[in-house]
Amino acid sequence: MIKVGVAGFGVIGQRLADGVALQQDMELVGVADAAVTLTIRALKEKGMPYDLYNAVPANAELFEKAGVPISGSLEDLVKKVDVMLDATSAGIGAKNKVIYEKYGVKAIFQGGESNDVADVFFHGYANYAKGVNADYLKLTSCNTTGLIRAVDCIDRSAGVEKVAITIIRRVADPGDYHRGLTNALMVDKAPSHQALDLMTIMPHVDATGILIHTPVTHGHIITVLASTKEELSKEQLLEMFNKHPRIRVVSTDEGFLGNASLFRYARDLGNSRGDMYEIAVWEDTIVKSGKDIMFAINIPQEAVVIPENIDAVRAAMGMQTDPAEGVAKTNEYLGMGKWM
Amino acid sequence: MIKVGVAGFGVIGQRLADGVALQQDMELVGVADAAVTLTIRALKEKGMPYDLYNAVPANAELFEKAGVPISGSLEDLVKKVDVMLDATSAGIGAKNKVIYEKYGVKAIFQGGESNDVADVFFHGYANYAKGVNADYLKLTSCNTTGLIRAVDCIDRSAGVEKVAITIIRRVADPGDYHRGLTNALMVDKAPSHQALDLMTIMPHVDATGILIHTPVTHGHIITVLASTKEELSKEQLLEMFNKHPRIRVVSTDEGFLGNASLFRYARDLGNSRGDMYEIAVWEDTIVKSGKDIMFAINIPQEAVVIPENIDAVRAAMGMQTDPAEGVAKTNEYLGMGKWM
Amino acid sequence: MIKVGVAGFGVIGQRLADGVALQQDMELVGVADAAVTLTIRALKEKGMPYDLYNAVPANAELFEKAGVPISGSLEDLVKKVDVMLDATSAGIGAKNKVIYEKYGVKAIFQGGESNDVADVFFHGYANYAKGVNADYLKLTSCNTTGLIRAVDCIDRSAGVEKVAITIIRRVADPGDYHRGLTNALMVDKAPSHQALDLMTIMPHVDATGILIHTPVTHGHIITVLASTKEELSKEQLLEMFNKHPRIRVVSTDEGFLGNASLFRYARDLGNSRGDMYEIAVWEDTIVKSGKDIMFAINIPQEAVVIPENIDAVRAAMGMQTDPAEGVAKTNEYLGMGKWM
Amino acid sequence: MIKVGVAGFGVIGQRLADGVALQQDMELVGVADAAVTLTIRALKEKGMPYDLYNAVPANAELFEKAGVPISGSLEDLVKKVDVMLDATSAGIGAKNKVIYEKYGVKAIFQGGESNDVADVFFHGYANYAKGVNADYLKLTSCNTTGLIRAVDCIDRSAGVEKVAITIIRRVADPGDYHRGLTNALMVDKAPSHQALDLMTIMPHVDATGILIHTPVTHGHIITVLASTKEELSKEQLLEMFNKHPRIRVVSTDEGFLGNASLFRYARDLGNSRGDMYEIAVWEDTIVKSGKDIMFAINIPQEAVVIPENIDAVRAAMGMQTDPAEGVAKTNEYLGMGKWM
Repeated sequence: MIKVGVAGFGVIGQRLADGVALQQDMELVGVADAAVTLTIRALKEKGMPYDLYNAVPANAELFEKAGVPISGSLEDLVKKVDVMLDATSAGIGAKNKVIYEKYGVKAIFQGGESNDVADVFFHGYANYAKGVNADYLKLTSCNTTGLIRAVDCIDRSAGVEKVAITIIRRVADPGDYHRGLTNALMVDKAPSHQALDLMTIMPHVDATGILIHTPVTHGHIITVLASTKEELSKEQLLEMFNKHPRIRVVSTDEGFLGNASLFRYARDLGNSRGDMYEIAVWEDTIVKSGKDIMFAINIPQEAVVIPENIDAVRAAMGMQTDPAEGVAKTNEYLGMGKWM
Repeated sequence: MIKVGVAGFGVIGQRLADGVALQQDMELVGVADAAVTLTIRALKEKGMPYDLYNAVPANAELFEKAGVPISGSLEDLVKKVDVMLDATSAGIGAKNKVIYEKYGVKAIFQGGESNDVADVFFHGYANYAKGVNADYLKLTSCNTTGLIRAVDCIDRSAGVEKVAITIIRRVADPGDYHRGLTNALMVDKAPSHQALDLMTIMPHVDATGILIHTPVTHGHIITVLASTKEELSKEQLLEMFNKHPRIRVVSTDEGFLGNASLFRYARDLGNSRGDMYEIAVWEDTIVKSGKDIMFAINIPQEAVVIPENIDAVRAAMGMQTDPAEGVAKTNEYLGMGKWM
Repeated sequence: MIKVGVAGFGVIGQRLADGVALQQDMELVGVADAAVTLTIRALKEKGMPYDLYNAVPANAELFEKAGVPISGSLEDLVKKVDVMLDATSAGIGAKNKVIYEKYGVKAIFQGGESNDVADVFFHGYANYAKGVNADYLKLTSCNTTGLIRAVDCIDRSAGVEKVAITIIRRVADPGDYHRGLTNALMVDKAPSHQALDLMTIMPHVDATGILIHTPVTHGHIITVLASTKEELSKEQLLEMFNKHPRIRVVSTDEGFLGNASLFRYARDLGNSRGDMYEIAVWEDTIVKSGKDIMFAINIPQEAVVIPENIDAVRAAMGMQTDPAEGVAKTNEYLGMGKWM
Repeated sequence: MIKVGVAGFGVIGQRLADGVALQQDMELVGVADAAVTLTIRALKEKGMPYDLYNAVPANAELFEKAGVPISGSLEDLVKKVDVMLDATSAGIGAKNKVIYEKYGVKAIFQGGESNDVADVFFHGYANYAKGVNADYLKLTSCNTTGLIRAVDCIDRSAGVEKVAITIIRRVADPGDYHRGLTNALMVDKAPSHQALDLMTIMPHVDATGILIHTPVTHGHIITVLASTKEELSKEQLLEMFNKHPRIRVVSTDEGFLGNASLFRYARDLGNSRGDMYEIAVWEDTIVKSGKDIMFAINIPQEAVVIPENIDAVRAAMGMQTDPAEGVAKTNEYLGMGKWM
């Protein structure tokens, strides 16, 4: 049993904790946070299913005042684990690394941290081997994680040479009040970091792209234009996507009219928090011209990175050194692919 | 065991089904719907935990094509039950009533039906007694249901004489594509039907109000100005609200900044679909001037009516003839009040 | 000719400048700003109809680089004028006041400044007399300005004793990217400052209220519950509102379905920037119960304060010492009431 | 003087009327509409600068009741003109065509009509010659019109072979209450009609694309990936765009952060209704890889088609048979290019 701790119990952190708790070969030792957020209040109301460690000792009084029991400091948690999943706010991970190093504990950082915090910039499907036995891994961000799933899926069969993406980004998560857009699209300078990150993970691909922020909360949509070495028929493409345990194929004819349909569907499935680990590809957006394929995918930003984070634990801890075995274990314990 | 069927497996219907399934003295016989919606597709993906009956025989082919197993017609379902919870689209309930009458089955209709479909316009807390052993009940709509909870709660202690409300209405549910507003507030003619409905249920109260639609999906907010016979202190009011099993007291200081905070909290609690049965009162919105009290409440529109619907089954079937016992059973099986 | 300068050429400042330019007994000497904003770029593209003064000398290079001609410093502008309209960001006005005092120049501040910056907290209709010959005036904010118009209008005929408001606030202006809400209503602690401000301006009224932020940009909506000394019929109320030069009476039957309808209408009128100086009252939201009147008004947040600011210049400079004459001149030159 | 009438005085129609009124070689005879909309009410409040003709005789009473003076029927208008600009709702144009044919009057239809209503599918820059002396022209829709401006601009210098677009569509206009999306992106089946329409107008280009609807009102954004015959440097591309009278080059560094910035800028310019005829290209979104160029453009949906409609009148009436002369006249009278 690999012992895992989670630092940062926010949007990503709590989902990482739930994901780890589902792995039969991992033990979730505890989670750490620094403030009495709504998520912490909910943890308390649920009866503290996870032990909570206080990441900022000076805030002990706040937890006490709110009646939230604390099991120790972040350092106490780190001492008990083999590996930390760090989902703290951007920049905090780099500070926490000092503690991880002190106790010789491996760590997985999220996309918001700068690349130099880690030895390997990691994606479960695209470069699992690089993460095997590495000490510090950084995961790709939500958009990049989902995008690479799709591009890697095509690349394995037909070879991808060029990618041009348009990211239609959800600007906030449900319940966010610290950021938001009202009746406005916002343009980022190009190329988007997601295109650059894809090239870091998949260096044989030439990628570029533009990102536009939109005032919605339930999932990014990316249009992908991929140029392949071998020409693929739409049927072949669909077959590949349908086989992939982390990709769903949906259509507007079925009623999946947009990102909000997928959120509703995940809620109706009874998934915890209405989360979805899979990206979705809209079958009826696939168009092609020779070796150029264009299609739209949905990225459920809150949960999409969970599987690849679990993959990262498997790789870093050497639990599975074979990539296919590693991701398969993650998929099995997360129950992915069960709908097929 | 009272046998219950649900007609209409949409936003409300599926939550009614789940709510009935939790009642240890009721049996959910099955649910009926007329089309292969996303919710039906999710039911199929979950492995058909509820038997599905086809409400429109002509659509049998659609279900078959989608691979959704059907257990019979709506009429088949009605034959097997003691009472139907009808959550079909407005106007369909009146048509279904013919079937219910044919088999002598009682029925509970939702707020969208016209009042004359039912013998009693019902609210679990405000007029349970009127529903006892009645054949056809109509529930108040989501806003009215939540509003009456708060007004009735005050009325029991201090007597409410007048109410003036402003309903800041969410215009669509998450995932709705058939209705929506974009960057606009929309004004309804006054008085709002919710004020009129409140007076029907609580005839001793003089109520009026204005409704404004807003482009959000996670809960209505209502500001309530209530004039009481007895003056209440803010502390007394909070104590009453805190005791009520279907009312939560929250504050902006805790991080409940608006309707979206409550949705996030319900998701973080792990509630199915991120649903919440309780209305919330913001402690820091309570202001008073003599016998006038003003405060803001949150109405989680998708789930708020479930408890009162279950109450209605209890009343109509005579399961509990005492109002306090009836609502207490509902609360117990739905797990309400557990956070206190 | 009274010489007027405007400090801060943003959303409010540019509209103040346009408003002053329309007054045949005032001369707009120039405007001051500190940065090369889009509004300044537009001023340049229009050929600099107003002379621009640089409020922060250190930024001279930025203006030069952008090719925007500068006529001097803020201090240079202050030297040339009789009165300054200060529409800078909250807190800057207090700093600028030192310059105004140095040159014995009067000034009008906006609602964002703290009250102690001014001798008089001013509203053109409700307390014009207090502003006559005063040196430093502070205007009420957009919501309070519009609200007081309506309450004062009723108060003159029927005496207002109590007011309870619900402010459904637009959270950003069109084109704002520095603030925003996405799919969320946000609750403020009560009572809202607008209710408190109303009591400062109209001390004989007992006022309270709750403010809810909504993700829209085209106008606040306020529901007003006013308790009067004398009972008014709906017809009397409409007559009073119809006569008021700064109030429009509209209805949903005419097609005014909400705040966005008024914005569209103002654009279709050909008003500069689609601005509207008038508040609107929805005729079909007026409901009453004895001496309690409830109705909804629209507050076009970008332009609504312009008339009262012009009134303030008239009062402070003693141009008209009679309130009725003062506001009438403003109305005449702004072309208000022309639609009747 | 060419005599012009406008049928349909809605979002497009009123802007067409204004555009025609600015042409010194055209006379706007009148406009026709069928209902007392807000736009018609605004026309009345402005004192009827344009004569209004009633398109549906049965509605005469409605106009009379609203006090809107009518100058005759649509047929009366058609009799007086040389050419009609038909901006009625989709499908009505085809019906009106019978009247136009009866009187031998030419007509220009909008993008919503089916292609077979017209002899020529027209774009001022891309195929002006085809429209010369034609009787019935149909204009491209707003997105296609703006897109073709950009693609044609590149095509003239470097030859465009392939285009792949992602349309991030605004779902409603400011003030629309009959359509809207709330917190949702909506996916259309691909390829988008805009890509197909581009190929009809520019048959030598291979185009495809995906359209996603977003809940905003101030302008579509399109990302364009264009593959050219000749490689262009970013500087060459910018030079071409900067020279084009109907294209603005903007940047996020200047403060143009998205579609809403352009709307604000147009309002601050004092443009009627805050309209903008030009599309904008974001300089800092331009990325290239060999002969592939990618960039984002803004389409101000309410006004962008006006210049090409005026071009269509010039072509159809043979006012200028040389394309360059035709569009230049339109640009001159609309004041386009003045900012350079």
